[in-house]
Amino acid sequence: MSPIPVSPITFDRLCFRVEGKPVYLYSGEMHYFRVPKADWLRRMQLLKEAGGNCVATYIPWLLHEPEEGQFRFGEAADWLDLEGFLQCAREAGLYVIARPGPYQYSELIYDGLPGWLCEQYPEVLAQDVEGKSFRSSSVSYLHPVFLEKVQRWFDVVCPILASYTLSKGGPIAFVQLDNETIGIHEWFNTLDYNRSTMGFGKENGRYPRFLARRYEDIRRVSGLYGREYTSFSAVEPPPITGVGNLADIRRQRDYFEFYLETIAEYFQTLAGMLRAHGIDAPLMHNSGNPTMNAYFQRVVEQMGEGFLLGSDHYYNLDQNWAQNHPTPQYAVRVFLSNEMLRLMGFPPTVLELPGGSAADWPPVTAEDAHTAYFTNLALGMKGHNYYVFSGGPNPPGAGSTTDSYDYGAGISAEGEIRPLYRAQKEFGDFIRDHPKFLVSSRAYDCRFGLDFDLARAIRYWQHSDEGYFSGARAMEFLRTGPLTTALCASLSPVMCDLGTEDWLEDMDTPLMVVCSSSMSREKQERLVRFIQQGGKAIFAPVLPVLDETFEPCSILADYLGLSAQATGVDSMRRPCLGPVNNVLGRVHWIQAWPAEARVLGKEAVTGKPVACQVRGGEGQAILLGLEWVHAKREHEHMLRYLFGELDLHQKVACCNPNLWTSLWQSEDSSLLFIMNLLTAPMTARIQFQGLRGWVDAGEHNIPPVRVVCLEFNKQDESG
Amino acid sequence: MSPIPVSPITFDRLCFRVEGKPVYLYSGEMHYFRVPKADWLRRMQLLKEAGGNCVATYIPWLLHEPEEGQFRFGEAADWLDLEGFLQCAREAGLYVIARPGPYQYSELIYDGLPGWLCEQYPEVLAQDVEGKSFRSSSVSYLHPVFLEKVQRWFDVVCPILASYTLSKGGPIAFVQLDNETIGIHEWFNTLDYNRSTMGFGKENGRYPRFLARRYEDIRRVSGLYGREYTSFSAVEPPPITGVGNLADIRRQRDYFEFYLETIAEYFQTLAGMLRAHGIDAPLMHNSGNPTMNAYFQRVVEQMGEGFLLGSDHYYNLDQNWAQNHPTPQYAVRVFLSNEMLRLMGFPPTVLELPGGSAADWPPVTAEDAHTAYFTNLALGMKGHNYYVFSGGPNPPGAGSTTDSYDYGAGISAEGEIRPLYRAQKEFGDFIRDHPKFLVSSRAYDCRFGLDFDLARAIRYWQHSDEGYFSGARAMEFLRTGPLTTALCASLSPVMCDLGTEDWLEDMDTPLMVVCSSSMSREKQERLVRFIQQGGKAIFAPVLPVLDETFEPCSILADYLGLSAQATGVDSMRRPCLGPVNNVLGRVHWIQAWPAEARVLGKEAVTGKPVACQVRGGEGQAILLGLEWVHAKREHEHMLRYLFGELDLHQKVACCNPNLWTSLWQSEDSSLLFIMNLLTAPMTARIQFQGLRGWVDAGEHNIPPVRVVCLEFNKQDESG
Repeated sequence: MSPIPVSPITFDRLCFRVEGKPVYLYSGEMHYFRVPKADWLRRMQLLKEAGGNCVATYIPWLLHEPEEGQFRFGEAADWLDLEGFLQCAREAGLYVIARPGPYQYSELIYDGLPGWLCEQYPEVLAQDVEGKSFRSSSVSYLHPVFLEKVQRWFDVVCPILASYTLSKGGPIAFVQLDNETIGIHEWFNTLDYNRSTMGFGKENGRYPRFLARRYEDIRRVSGLYGREYTSFSAVEPPPITGVGNLADIRRQRDYFEFYLETIAEYFQTLAGMLRAHGIDAPLMHNSGNPTMNAYFQRVVEQMGEGFLLGSDHYYNLDQNWAQNHPTPQYAVRVFLSNEMLRLMGFPPTVLELPGGSAADWPPVTAEDAHTAYFTNLALGMKGHNYYVFSGGPNPPGAGSTTDSYDYGAGISAEGEIRPLYRAQKEFGDFIRDHPKFLVSSRAYDCRFGLDFDLARAIRYWQHSDEGYFSGARAMEFLRTGPLTTALCASLSPVMCDLGTEDWLEDMDTPLMVVCSSSMSREKQERLVRFIQQGGKAIFAPVLPVLDETFEPCSILADYLGLSAQATGVDSMRRPCLGPVNNVLGRVHWIQAWPAEARVLGKEAVTGKPVACQVRGGEGQAILLGLEWVHAKREHEHMLRYLFGELDLHQKVACCNPNLWTSLWQSEDSSLLFIMNLLTAPMTARIQFQGLRGWVDAGEHNIPPVRVVCLEFNKQDESG
Repeated sequence: MSPIPVSPITFDRLCFRVEGKPVYLYSGEMHYFRVPKADWLRRMQLLKEAGGNCVATYIPWLLHEPEEGQFRFGEAADWLDLEGFLQCAREAGLYVIARPGPYQYSELIYDGLPGWLCEQYPEVLAQDVEGKSFRSSSVSYLHPVFLEKVQRWFDVVCPILASYTLSKGGPIAFVQLDNETIGIHEWFNTLDYNRSTMGFGKENGRYPRFLARRYEDIRRVSGLYGREYTSFSAVEPPPITGVGNLADIRRQRDYFEFYLETIAEYFQTLAGMLRAHGIDAPLMHNSGNPTMNAYFQRVVEQMGEGFLLGSDHYYNLDQNWAQNHPTPQYAVRVFLSNEMLRLMGFPPTVLELPGGSAADWPPVTAEDAHTAYFTNLALGMKGHNYYVFSGGPNPPGAGSTTDSYDYGAGISAEGEIRPLYRAQKEFGDFIRDHPKFLVSSRAYDCRFGLDFDLARAIRYWQHSDEGYFSGARAMEFLRTGPLTTALCASLSPVMCDLGTEDWLEDMDTPLMVVCSSSMSREKQERLVRFIQQGGKAIFAPVLPVLDETFEPCSILADYLGLSAQATGVDSMRRPCLGPVNNVLGRVHWIQAWPAEARVLGKEAVTGKPVACQVRGGEGQAILLGLEWVHAKREHEHMLRYLFGELDLHQKVACCNPNLWTSLWQSEDSSLLFIMNLLTAPMTARIQFQGLRGWVDAGEHNIPPVRVVCLEFNKQDESG
């Protein structure tokens, strides 16, 4: 990309662009309040040399308004010189992502909020369902006093930012709203129930108004919630436990959706403040982790054009994380996250890609980080920001974890180059050397449906008493079962958003939909249309019997004449499918199947079907009544067999389930990523569907925890 | 060891012995009901060639009594020929560990129990607190009908085993009682509350009798439980949730201890059956995982001589495990497990050491397994059994996970040699080439107290409403905080059992005791004696204020004149200790300290002490009011500083916290294990306290996920 940031950065779901030309957004986080001013420029130049075109920084409210109403910037100390930093970035030829909060986290005390705010205005704190505040720096985002204080901070900082946007000749390309919003509630196992923010018990309170908008008649609420209410303001919010009967789950889902509406309102409010100050840069936000992406769907809808949602993809921040290094399980989460962002319309952007860790141990090593970077790239990442590219000493008393914020970053707190930096440069070199990658598409041979409702259900529907197959369980099954199996079986999956129409046109690529017992009427109808028009789909492990409000609705099952309800049974069953015997998993019995259904698999002890295929309109559907955690070769064989019945044609053939592949193709070249995310060397012969026919990519021995990428030009391919 | 198993195997906490000579117990699991008979001998010979001296097998009740009262053995099929297998082992020159159940698990349906038992006698099933059975093959161990059926099975199988023990010229060296007992309850988040087994509501029921024995007067129970009871039989058992007020925790602890008494009774009952049939081999049992070891303390006490407790040390059995390969976190668990077994009087024995996995994916690779084996060895393992050494086809319909029980074992189901076998042979070669290892002792420079009460508290005391520092949290802190820090700081810890006297003699090696708010009066008194007599100890993060029945008792705190209660606060604190600033952790305020106490550390914001040192009698004590998860170099510096104040002299010096060491020394040689359990190569210069002074072991670059061992003979050491 042009080294001089002048033109704005635009984006679509394929990639970022500058003046229409595809660009990879390569950003590194570097804090002017930590890195010594004398070394800003040199470290920025190092970032550029590694391939960087952007630098990101928090702008901590905590530091700039240490006493209420007393603001200080560069005149007070070098480490407060925001403007100097922006000028330096301009001089270095880097775009800037400015992150003025209100929240920063960033291992600052009070998560970067001013201490006086948290200590002297306890009314702004978030509250749990019992009305108690649970943490000294978790606020209620829409509390009027909080917003009033934010307004005052923004009134000071926004004019500075506004004068440094690209349109004013400055370097600011993006302004980030807040930081990992929701995290300060979610991570402490609650939502916010601040009574005055949410307006419980008040006629025109936010929660009563939400219920009135959604249900219109209070009798409807009484009926659905299984309680007697006389007015909307009489409805008390439920604790979020994720368990209960359907009425409980419904109440929790409504409260969670209401809460997410308040988040959208918070974003609108912050954006309004920025826009009022003339900040014309696009806005962005970083979802705290892949699981939280779906929480921001409403924010994305409301913010519209000029807003980018990215996600934070750490693999380890302390010894209690699921893994110490990038594992296959991490890769599946990355894949889901990137696909989710793409489906929301964005170039998948990892706004915090590990550039170290606040923990010195377990360490984020250069080798592991390299693998993490290329894993993210292989699975769709089109831009990133290292958190952090370089650190330095914390301002006096401001660090919550340490006094030296070294972070094990590529450039140490003292400014020395570490091996991690070389890994980052290798990544930059790869991007530079493969300009076609950005406009390539990922080859796919099968599709998995994504129901955003299920992606949010982890908060409100873990388990329902009646034995329905829950949304949280369905998402976990999708991730640990079919998706993982597909990757082990060397299939090339993509996701499609069941809430949209754009995937309906492709009648050739088979679709697998993991269903919970609930699916919106609209999505069920869309799936019926897909089958009618010639689509081919596998449904597992059940078919929905409820709509999005958890009222009876089995449009899809009725159309197919099939029904599998949630009745998972234990391991005394022997599901046998086609040529594959005794597939490990939980059987959900198929209760109804039409006489003309083709039975593809039976439970061996009872002889009852576990997989049935039916025709519908021009299309075909398979119901697979099996739930599994990928573990066995039999799972691969089963999935290939079932997709084979729906005419899947593999794009890649790799005989080793421990090597995962991702194939990207442009008009005249193919890039084949091979990922070994295990800790032993792995060998396989790999072939793929090239641009002119099958290509033998040869036999490869991939070292442990390493991603390699092979490039094939069209003319080199052996047809 | 002698290749001809004739003499019995004895054991003490140092090692196994045959005719007094130290021997490593090297066993491999191989099932006659899976491995084809024609290949038994060859595979056993392969086991021997790998260093094996023992073969283990389940003897599945399920297969031998397929219909009630209808027993079948070798006359029915080769895969039922138990006697043929025992003869074959004798011929191969291998000892045998016979595991006749009742339970096997072993990926057999009904966990290896006969289906007729589970289906036709539902009264034997374990029940949850609501009286409902929760799983079709989880029984109530002491249910009379279950024991009657077990007796019938044992009446048939025990005479066979009795005639093949070593004293009869057979190969059976050990008989295992049951399998991973408690697991079939614990893993489904309950204990057993089968009403008829436990005798709730009955004057002479087991639970009422337990309460009467423990409390004598029902008014005492009423007082302690905070409820009104008129008789012991009126006491209803509590659900085990691990949370509640102190009275709730007390009830749960009592029920759990009662439950563990029933487990001890179960073991006595099974042992009685075996002994009645003349089985004179020592008995053994495999704790299901390191966490469960402490559950068997009562069993161990009651079984006395001739009983061995081992543990199962898997690192991954499916993708949802905490790790895919042996990690540092796994090593800490292994260390704790081996030390616990040693403290119970046993040579640490891993009765199921991963020899593959029921899951094909994530795979147990030869490289990872090699590392797991040597990690276990470095941390004290004195014997093991590969689960499994070799598999084969499951008997028809009997496999719950697959039809071919290949297990990814060193010898495949078809009998082919895999790389994993070579890793196993390398391990055997190492044992053969280092005969001194078995009688070496592990060098140590610091000690950590183990309170077995805390090790069990995970089940009944996660959190108490009053804000006490719970037993479960103390154990987690010990593992993830001080122990991990010690290993990163290249200290060489050992554990000592606070419940015994034998560690009191050593006044030189400093001791660290992680305390919960509760510690038995006896242990508190013992610690006071230790200090009085000249011992040096660090206590963290609180001092006990309750005794073992959760009644007030602060003998230790009173003696020291110090008191820190559980008041963990959030991250706005800056603990500074000696030369170390801003140590990440939760501060537990020291509320009382005598004027003569030496303040070793303060919280910087308030200036209040977070670490105080006092003299007591001849000794010294430090109270450290900090709780942490090891993450930072500061944690290492802090721990070295505090131990340094108590005159610790390090045995090993390694500058890289990512390389962990374990030093074993005999009279004339030192073995230094260096473990790299991360996924990047690691380098360090290492020195250690040799037999004649400090030895420079040189600079070493250890590849990822690899354990190496260096040997130094006394004469080679540079003094």
